[in-house]
Amino acid sequence: MTNREEIDRIFYCAPFINDLGITLIEYGEGRCETRLTLTDKHLQQDGLVHAGVQATIADHTAGTAAATLIGAKQMVLTVEFKINLLRAARGQSLLCRARVLKPGSRLSVVESEVYCDAPGSVTLVSKALITMAILDKKAATD
Amino acid sequence: MTNREEIDRIFYCAPFINDLGITLIEYGEGRCETRLTLTDKHLQQDGLVHAGVQATIADHTAGTAAATLIGAKQMVLTVEFKINLLRAARGQSLLCRARVLKPGSRLSVVESEVYCDAPGSVTLVSKALITMAILDKKAATD
Amino acid sequence: MTNREEIDRIFYCAPFINDLGITLIEYGEGRCETRLTLTDKHLQQDGLVHAGVQATIADHTAGTAAATLIGAKQMVLTVEFKINLLRAARGQSLLCRARVLKPGSRLSVVESEVYCDAPGSVTLVSKALITMAILDKKAATD
Amino acid sequence: MTNREEIDRIFYCAPFINDLGITLIEYGEGRCETRLTLTDKHLQQDGLVHAGVQATIADHTAGTAAATLIGAKQMVLTVEFKINLLRAARGQSLLCRARVLKPGSRLSVVESEVYCDAPGSVTLVSKALITMAILDKKAATD
Repeated sequence: MTNREEIDRIFYCAPFINDLGITLIEYGEGRCETRLTLTDKHLQQDGLVHAGVQATIADHTAGTAAATLIGAKQMVLTVEFKINLLRAARGQSLLCRARVLKPGSRLSVVESEVYCDAPGSVTLVSKALITMAILDKKAATD
Repeated sequence: MTNREEIDRIFYCAPFINDLGITLIEYGEGRCETRLTLTDKHLQQDGLVHAGVQATIADHTAGTAAATLIGAKQMVLTVEFKINLLRAARGQSLLCRARVLKPGSRLSVVESEVYCDAPGSVTLVSKALITMAILDKKAATD
Repeated sequence: MTNREEIDRIFYCAPFINDLGITLIEYGEGRCETRLTLTDKHLQQDGLVHAGVQATIADHTAGTAAATLIGAKQMVLTVEFKINLLRAARGQSLLCRARVLKPGSRLSVVESEVYCDAPGSVTLVSKALITMAILDKKAATD
Repeated sequence: MTNREEIDRIFYCAPFINDLGITLIEYGEGRCETRLTLTDKHLQQDGLVHAGVQATIADHTAGTAAATLIGAKQMVLTVEFKINLLRAARGQSLLCRARVLKPGSRLSVVESEVYCDAPGSVTLVSKALITMAILDKKAATD
């Protein structure tokens, strides 16, 4: 029984995600898929998608995947993550798929793959391994 | 002999960094310090600074610290990083300090600390360990 | 054309791997599988397989997977890795499968999964993301 | 009020640590120092200290540093760690220093530095960032 309200909140009440333009495509138990149409503002000094943009979509999609498995009064918060930038990231959009490797009552471990979508190709550009804390809503931001 | 031109380029020609509002405070051999005045757009759904914002400042400041030690025709590109979000990040600004742990001709390893600056306190909110590749400019974005 | 000689050297000339008892099961282009029969000496203070044992098999199997794709006079050396310990690791043996996510001429990125094999079950107990450097043999250990 | 009993248990009841030969030098609130006299068995195929040995001392010393800050009926368990191998590790012994960056009631984040001690020099060879879970003893290994 996925916590749909929390997922909507994660996606539509996060100003940084709205500002970047990341959109929710689909989710199910322990997984989530998102997309970002790339514009100049997402780039670093050499015309590639900034590592921080890739990290943001990897992290936020992972959090949403973890949130599909939590209780009604719980929330997720990132403990840590690691991301490898595998290839020069260029294209029309980023696509991110996250799946929970290990759900837990206190911690969930998630992996995210980020793809670049260019005409005629979809390329894996980064991969992340993320640890999320599962918290009760009242305690979460102390 | 720090590569000042490359550092200016990293900072002033990276649209994502300008869009976020990250500014260069100071740098020297193997170190860099940056700042970001926080606004609502940097937040996630619970009013905290988004992990992706913290990751971006940690990564970009690390890249700049690594770039203080490279040659005139070289550039840096992030290979990977890991970041731990240590505390709920709230405040008026983020401050980031990066220092090179191990410079190299092909790889540099850098650590970044991100602080939240609120009235009366400066708190360490995240710490990152970053691997940067040192590349010749012509080959860098192939 | 896999570099069989280098793979044999990686496995049979690494004293720490022999001392732990890790054995090579199988390898192919960009992948490797290894096994470790568990004994008391591999455990930590609570009777679980030590994180360091899991890290060692994840790292070494990743290095071997990367080595299946290198040239005759090259070698691999670990740059960094991150490992998540997903579940309490207990059982009769560890099984590790590594696959190269991104081969490269200077760096290869590999992921390793470690499983615990107990009667009636095989459980994923840890997952690692590893960056390997590809070096010319003469320069490698300077 | 450091939990001395638990620290002794972590060090003297962990078969893998005894087998490697890692010894406890010193500890205090939120910090720990350990040492390993190097022998051939700690090496990989090129005569360097195996990444798995460096990871083991970094992880175990971090766990001990975290354990200096826990309650009498609590224990620590590694959630994840990341380690950068900075330099070729050779010498007579490894020295590891860990310090807690952020203590917590459920999670502690620790950093470890590993040094190689050779005649006339002490060199930083690796640095790790480690997340430890703090658990009640009865629940810990479920």
